[in-house]
Amino acid sequence: MFGSKLQETVNNVSGGHAAILMGFDGIPVDMYSKEPEPDIEIIGMEFSVILKEVRKAAEMLDSGTAEELMIKTEKLSTIIRVVTDEYFLALAVNPEGNIGKARYLLRILAPEFMKELT
Amino acid sequence: MFGSKLQETVNNVSGGHAAILMGFDGIPVDMYSKEPEPDIEIIGMEFSVILKEVRKAAEMLDSGTAEELMIKTEKLSTIIRVVTDEYFLALAVNPEGNIGKARYLLRILAPEFMKELT
Repeated sequence: MFGSKLQETVNNVSGGHAAILMGFDGIPVDMYSKEPEPDIEIIGMEFSVILKEVRKAAEMLDSGTAEELMIKTEKLSTIIRVVTDEYFLALAVNPEGNIGKARYLLRILAPEFMKELT
Repeated sequence: MFGSKLQETVNNVSGGHAAILMGFDGIPVDMYSKEPEPDIEIIGMEFSVILKEVRKAAEMLDSGTAEELMIKTEKLSTIIRVVTDEYFLALAVNPEGNIGKARYLLRILAPEFMKELT
């Protein structure tokens, strides 16, 4: 059920490239990608490391749980949403894509996935 | 000139908490904070480490220059904008604050600061 939801999400965002449900250990549960490159699994793995750093920083700053991360580079924007203590969602969008819609769809999707994962 | 611009930016965002211009080495150039806590200098330092990781990841992914980062935790949202190779801007906003306006103002402010810094 994860794969089809991921596909639906990517296709519902203008400029959507790929989405992945991944463990904080960098192991993917499921993914969908419109194009093979850039590889969403490698993006997820790289950003799982950063997300762990963000969690540590949030703890250090006593700033509450890390909920969301958005990383914008020249060629790609990636929205990351923490689903549970063990899993996160990432959605990669092309530079001209709709980041607002991407954020919104992940906010809706995260609790749906949480139910399945816990 | 940086301090007054940072103050103006914080005050122009609903829910704005603090802003800082900082080197990637974690040393602040100038900052403004409405309240002493959470400490924007410590936030900046923590996120400078994360931003360096993001840069490395962007390079690894051949995804172009890192431009912007948004980190949302339960108690605080922080928008980070790369200004030059050496400096970045961070703007912290309360959870009910206007992240869209914060992003917009940093996008406008970054090139202004870049001119002064290069």
